[in-house]
Amino acid sequence: MNFEFHNPTRLIFGAGSLARLGEVASAYGKKALLVTGGGSVKKSGVLDRAKASLAAAGVAVAECSGVEPNPRIASVRRGADTIRREGCDVVVALGGGSTMDAAKVMAAAALYHGDPWNLIAHGQKDWRVPTAALPVITVPTLAATGSEMNCGAVISNDETKVKSFVQAECLFPKVALADPELTRTVPVNQTAYGVCDIITHVMEGYFNGVDGTPIQDRFAEGVILNALEWGRKAVADGSDLEARAQVQWASIVALNGWIQAGVHMVPPMHMIEHALSAHHDITHGAGLAIVGPAWMRFAAASRPERFAQFATRVFGIPAEGKDDAALARAGIAAYEEFLREIGCPTRLSEVGIDDALFAQYAKDAALVVHDDQGRLLGRPAMTQADIVAVLRAAL
Amino acid sequence: MNFEFHNPTRLIFGAGSLARLGEVASAYGKKALLVTGGGSVKKSGVLDRAKASLAAAGVAVAECSGVEPNPRIASVRRGADTIRREGCDVVVALGGGSTMDAAKVMAAAALYHGDPWNLIAHGQKDWRVPTAALPVITVPTLAATGSEMNCGAVISNDETKVKSFVQAECLFPKVALADPELTRTVPVNQTAYGVCDIITHVMEGYFNGVDGTPIQDRFAEGVILNALEWGRKAVADGSDLEARAQVQWASIVALNGWIQAGVHMVPPMHMIEHALSAHHDITHGAGLAIVGPAWMRFAAASRPERFAQFATRVFGIPAEGKDDAALARAGIAAYEEFLREIGCPTRLSEVGIDDALFAQYAKDAALVVHDDQGRLLGRPAMTQADIVAVLRAAL
Repeated sequence: MNFEFHNPTRLIFGAGSLARLGEVASAYGKKALLVTGGGSVKKSGVLDRAKASLAAAGVAVAECSGVEPNPRIASVRRGADTIRREGCDVVVALGGGSTMDAAKVMAAAALYHGDPWNLIAHGQKDWRVPTAALPVITVPTLAATGSEMNCGAVISNDETKVKSFVQAECLFPKVALADPELTRTVPVNQTAYGVCDIITHVMEGYFNGVDGTPIQDRFAEGVILNALEWGRKAVADGSDLEARAQVQWASIVALNGWIQAGVHMVPPMHMIEHALSAHHDITHGAGLAIVGPAWMRFAAASRPERFAQFATRVFGIPAEGKDDAALARAGIAAYEEFLREIGCPTRLSEVGIDDALFAQYAKDAALVVHDDQGRLLGRPAMTQADIVAVLRAAL
Repeated sequence: MNFEFHNPTRLIFGAGSLARLGEVASAYGKKALLVTGGGSVKKSGVLDRAKASLAAAGVAVAECSGVEPNPRIASVRRGADTIRREGCDVVVALGGGSTMDAAKVMAAAALYHGDPWNLIAHGQKDWRVPTAALPVITVPTLAATGSEMNCGAVISNDETKVKSFVQAECLFPKVALADPELTRTVPVNQTAYGVCDIITHVMEGYFNGVDGTPIQDRFAEGVILNALEWGRKAVADGSDLEARAQVQWASIVALNGWIQAGVHMVPPMHMIEHALSAHHDITHGAGLAIVGPAWMRFAAASRPERFAQFATRVFGIPAEGKDDAALARAGIAAYEEFLREIGCPTRLSEVGIDDALFAQYAKDAALVVHDDQGRLLGRPAMTQADIVAVLRAAL
């Protein structure tokens, strides 16, 4: 267990904290680029409240709206141009993971004099890890990605159909301002997909990390247990503020590095899902609900004891009379049943994806995170044939 | 659940990481004040290795050795004077909690032009929360306090017999360099006291926080479960590097704020113990082993359901046929048995403390952290008579 951990983001958590946005932003700049997504913050009145708070604190605003789900590098370019043209000195992301991810990369792209795709294009020619960015403040309106308190971003290239990611110290938001009230208007299906995203973030490290991290195991199990309990409640009653708060807190700790510290995780489920959503505009969390159980059945075959632990500790499945393989199967089935119960798709056919491009997805999934034989990293590493088999099992 | 969280300390964790001290320190200064305790780092050769690493990186060194257990404000004054006289620009703490706490306050005192005790003397006339400090690098040689990755320090005043604490943003170490190899030479008794300290840090928040923090509950239970398991192994075989690493990792997460985020904890067990160790030179962790079970029995009377949860989740005590009060008793007994098993004292008589000064301890314990009726904060709040009763139960 040798590792480094650093997360300098200041978290302000709690119902009503949106009102502090202006005060917070004014510590970092005089003119904010306010980045938003598809319009739900306008409809809900959250955008107006954010602007009022910024105005009251004397922070001028330029807007960059319309960041799409699975955000495109074209949006990043547009935002960076606006920052330069308008002379913004701080970036405020008000939205879900797409908005926050795009805003982070805009903040770096504004200080970079090449094509912003270079900041994303892992391992490709002209790849440059960002080293400087304007200060970013994240205001999540959806509990899912955890992007609010980490230094990562996932961006898609519309031309090449590649979805890739960047992680860099300079992309840590200065402040994450998480107000669970803002998530109360999230529709049922997006709430459910968010819960699946949270759980999958935790599972990646739990199933694809190194051995010998028992404290992190307990942390991971704790987050999953609570995501199951409170996620179910948030889906059943979106106005339940306590459920919304617990799910949002789960989303933050699921990917702010606390659970992954020392785990050295690799994320095969995410890589496979990214290959899907680069080609099809499905919500990331919905894609994970499809890929997850199928991948788990594949991985459990080579490491049943790990999935047996998951079954007993998370789903309370009694170990008596079952071997690890049976326990593993029962745990995965219980998880899949939970996903169905909250309304997630668990089959590709439910989101209109067939096997026509399976070979392409498999190739894309292993593009960045692979070993020297080209296999997608994970426990176990996956050949392209393995990835296709997992997808086929999820048809 | 409204709260703020911020911990900018960079953690470098792992066996062998002491070798990186020079590289790390050179990023923050050219001349280090190297703060150490009673001489064990000299004997073990760790001091020489630290100096060699600093020298190789071109960092000059001034030394401040001999920081005592329950560090005195006089030592802080001495260190701050040395910093000024020698022109140090970075402070390296190499030792246990006492050394790290003293070093943090030296780093602030060097930039403060009044009596350093003002930086500690909570709520007293002339009290000043520190606002600036030299950069601090912590290198813990003992797994116990968690001081390496937080912004707190506990300092004693030899003249007034008051032991008080300071928490300030500027006291976060820049880097915590945690090398579990350095803890392999810690004697059996100090190892055990450290384990008790770790568990008690977690328990304070678990038993004395607000309601409605179920994720933090799971985190706390996870740390305690692992401190029990790996603490027992580290006590049984001090050379077991995996056990040392797990215990050290537990000590860090037990008090770096991850488990306390949103919990709004108050620390009555610590306050009572501090009153004891201000008057008697007992190891903090040993004092906690005495105060802990006695306090728990007192607190369980008003909140048995909480202690029942502790009993079932941490000690796996079956709930069948027991009410909460009986479960609570069984859990506390199991914890006390664990403490005895690893060699901690659980009675005041074992460390030579009688009831002569009980009224004084009770008064001192409630000096800083009290409600408007003067009761020591906790769940429940404690009158001085309550504190005396708890101490009497621990005779």
